[in-house]
Amino acid sequence: MEKEIVKPSILPGFLELLPAEQIAFNKMMETIRKNYEKFGFIPQETPIIEKSEVLLAKGGGDTEKQIYRFTKGESDLSLRFDLTVPLARYVAQHMSSLTFPYRRYQIGKVYRGERNQKGRFREFYQCDIDIIGNGKLSIINDAEIPSIIYSTFKDLGFDSFTIHINNRKVLNGFFDNLQVENKIDVLRIIDKLEKIGMEAVKKELKEMNLSDEAIDSIERFITIDGSNDDIIEALKKLEVNDENFKLGVQELEKVVYYIREFKVPEKNFKIDLKIARGLDYYTGTVYETILDDYPSIGSVCSGGRYDNLAEYYTNQNLPGVGISIGLTRLFYQLHEAGIVKSEASTLTKVLVVPMDENFSYAIKTANALKEKGIISEVYFEETKFPKKLNYANKLGIPYIIIIGSQEIESGRLSLKNMITGEQERYTIEEIISLIK
Amino acid sequence: MEKEIVKPSILPGFLELLPAEQIAFNKMMETIRKNYEKFGFIPQETPIIEKSEVLLAKGGGDTEKQIYRFTKGESDLSLRFDLTVPLARYVAQHMSSLTFPYRRYQIGKVYRGERNQKGRFREFYQCDIDIIGNGKLSIINDAEIPSIIYSTFKDLGFDSFTIHINNRKVLNGFFDNLQVENKIDVLRIIDKLEKIGMEAVKKELKEMNLSDEAIDSIERFITIDGSNDDIIEALKKLEVNDENFKLGVQELEKVVYYIREFKVPEKNFKIDLKIARGLDYYTGTVYETILDDYPSIGSVCSGGRYDNLAEYYTNQNLPGVGISIGLTRLFYQLHEAGIVKSEASTLTKVLVVPMDENFSYAIKTANALKEKGIISEVYFEETKFPKKLNYANKLGIPYIIIIGSQEIESGRLSLKNMITGEQERYTIEEIISLIK
Repeated sequence: MEKEIVKPSILPGFLELLPAEQIAFNKMMETIRKNYEKFGFIPQETPIIEKSEVLLAKGGGDTEKQIYRFTKGESDLSLRFDLTVPLARYVAQHMSSLTFPYRRYQIGKVYRGERNQKGRFREFYQCDIDIIGNGKLSIINDAEIPSIIYSTFKDLGFDSFTIHINNRKVLNGFFDNLQVENKIDVLRIIDKLEKIGMEAVKKELKEMNLSDEAIDSIERFITIDGSNDDIIEALKKLEVNDENFKLGVQELEKVVYYIREFKVPEKNFKIDLKIARGLDYYTGTVYETILDDYPSIGSVCSGGRYDNLAEYYTNQNLPGVGISIGLTRLFYQLHEAGIVKSEASTLTKVLVVPMDENFSYAIKTANALKEKGIISEVYFEETKFPKKLNYANKLGIPYIIIIGSQEIESGRLSLKNMITGEQERYTIEEIISLIK
Repeated sequence: MEKEIVKPSILPGFLELLPAEQIAFNKMMETIRKNYEKFGFIPQETPIIEKSEVLLAKGGGDTEKQIYRFTKGESDLSLRFDLTVPLARYVAQHMSSLTFPYRRYQIGKVYRGERNQKGRFREFYQCDIDIIGNGKLSIINDAEIPSIIYSTFKDLGFDSFTIHINNRKVLNGFFDNLQVENKIDVLRIIDKLEKIGMEAVKKELKEMNLSDEAIDSIERFITIDGSNDDIIEALKKLEVNDENFKLGVQELEKVVYYIREFKVPEKNFKIDLKIARGLDYYTGTVYETILDDYPSIGSVCSGGRYDNLAEYYTNQNLPGVGISIGLTRLFYQLHEAGIVKSEASTLTKVLVVPMDENFSYAIKTANALKEKGIISEVYFEETKFPKKLNYANKLGIPYIIIIGSQEIESGRLSLKNMITGEQERYTIEEIISLIK
């Protein structure tokens, strides 16, 4: 009986990488992890499946439709759709075992049944850090966050990027002072400024029945520009009679002061009064990060300050500040744009190639290399020499060591540089120091 | 209106760790990863959700009932229950883009709706390596695998462990020669030898209508013992007239020969004719790894050689050999037994504690430490000094640097060793070299 073959394939909206891309992806993830750890963030992990009742405690919203929700036995289960809700649940659940401020990072996959389109993923990595206070949390943490973004994106190999900073109190205070009722809609329109231009924004504001005076005021506000200090001065000069606004400006000024103390270069951060980040969650500082040469990618690292992390799980007040990098989307876009290049399809530095069936000397050689931290393998398969070379070539292994009877007798091994094609004989010690 | 509070909790059978345990867990995972990479294995990742049709191509079996399977829109989805089926699908799907032998590792979570009991998890990490040949694969790979197990468990801090090795051809050939029809049941009974003893095993074999002669023969076979060489000699002397058996003994001999070449100490591996590992998958060498001081944990790393990885997805013949470490269960059991001890609840080495509101000097100090690779944070919260100390103590941060006006003036900072309690003044350069 012929066996039936099932066509091997994965679901649309899921990203699966070939070795070279996977290695490049992992390198980015490792860079992010190392940076988060460098700043004293503790690793946290939560299950991918949680109780629907818990995960959807907040309820409603666009996200709910996208959730992977199902039953198993009598349990109503959901796959996590971000790392923030699990963080809130974790902190509320383990509160008495944690030390505050609780600085944690979590890197993990989340799931959203997004409409299937290029560059949108249903399974993707988020890389989050948050600092959670018990009852209160110093504003200086809001200034440390940009220094972590700066350090991380520098290490990822970027030079030209701008961390856009704003404060929700400034926005809320400004619009309250104008007696704008539907602030959320107004913020949404303003958010489109870069895309549609000022005239279109004004037209849309007009359609919302805002007075000409209010629209003029909004135009003056969102076009405030100049250096960070200029913007703060301009905000102070605005005649906005709102306590929240004043507090927001004070916070923004303090955050800018300390960002400088954290040694983030002036060219890498900028107050941007147009950014709001989500609508009902952030309450103070907000961040977006733009790669200056690739603005169309949008924000590659966003977040902000919130007053109350876990209100659905505890009555304790837990203010925090955090950011998230959507790594899968970022990697995909950088790779598509040719910015992240995948190189070798292997981590191996040396392939040891025995010329005959005497594998013992080859094994000994590879062992000696591995002991010195040089990743190496032996080619064990019986085949002709060019095929062995081809294995190294296809994977991108930079060196091969050829071991024949002459090499074994003399103790001088043939080292071939696969990039230059050069081949010479060396002792194993010479090879180790040459490669290291 | 009072907000309704949802009790924060996770599902039974899911493991969630507190910081100290998570740090210890990650350390183990990192050790395994580094070892797999050292031997030239390439990282691979596959989606956690796959098409049910693909994941369950093999169908049937006990596993199927345990699978998390659900629909979303019109898709029939399942969560992966191991990393082997996704590997088979991946290799068949990307065959033309891969280089063979394909050496890959995958570390990831898998899902099984197991009956809820202590030490059994529904979400758990597997850490797998496999070497896949295209059409054929040298037997020497079977000998390299124990050297990877050896290196990994040494690095995990174990000294006394034994890699048990057997060959399915030896078993199959032996039982075929005895004309045992239900080999699988016989293997299952033999597998219980350690637990129930020889008399009980013989009784059960008798109940299967095996002849006294056959049972005697089986007893002689499974009690063959001695050094690895003794066992091979004894096998050769057995009058088993079966080609498969003879081939198996040859393979076993060759594997033992090369395991020695890979420098695995004799005390760390042992031929064990009783192990069979699963029933319909492995076709040659099989492995189990026992921690000598904790045999009750069972095998901590198992695997073997198979003839055909991906028969449900391709007509290509893909022989391979691989192993798997069930990390979540292993960690849980080692932790319960007090073998893996969690230490600090943080990765931070130095907490910089400003005595007053002048944070700039503290930030500068932490920056200098971080530049030298020393993980450090500044305590920014306004609170009394003992509370700041308490933060370091609770987390297990080993050093604090106290920064007051005297320190800033003199440039000599107070370094307090939190373990010994000692406190002295040093320059930042002295502190860096002291801590490094």
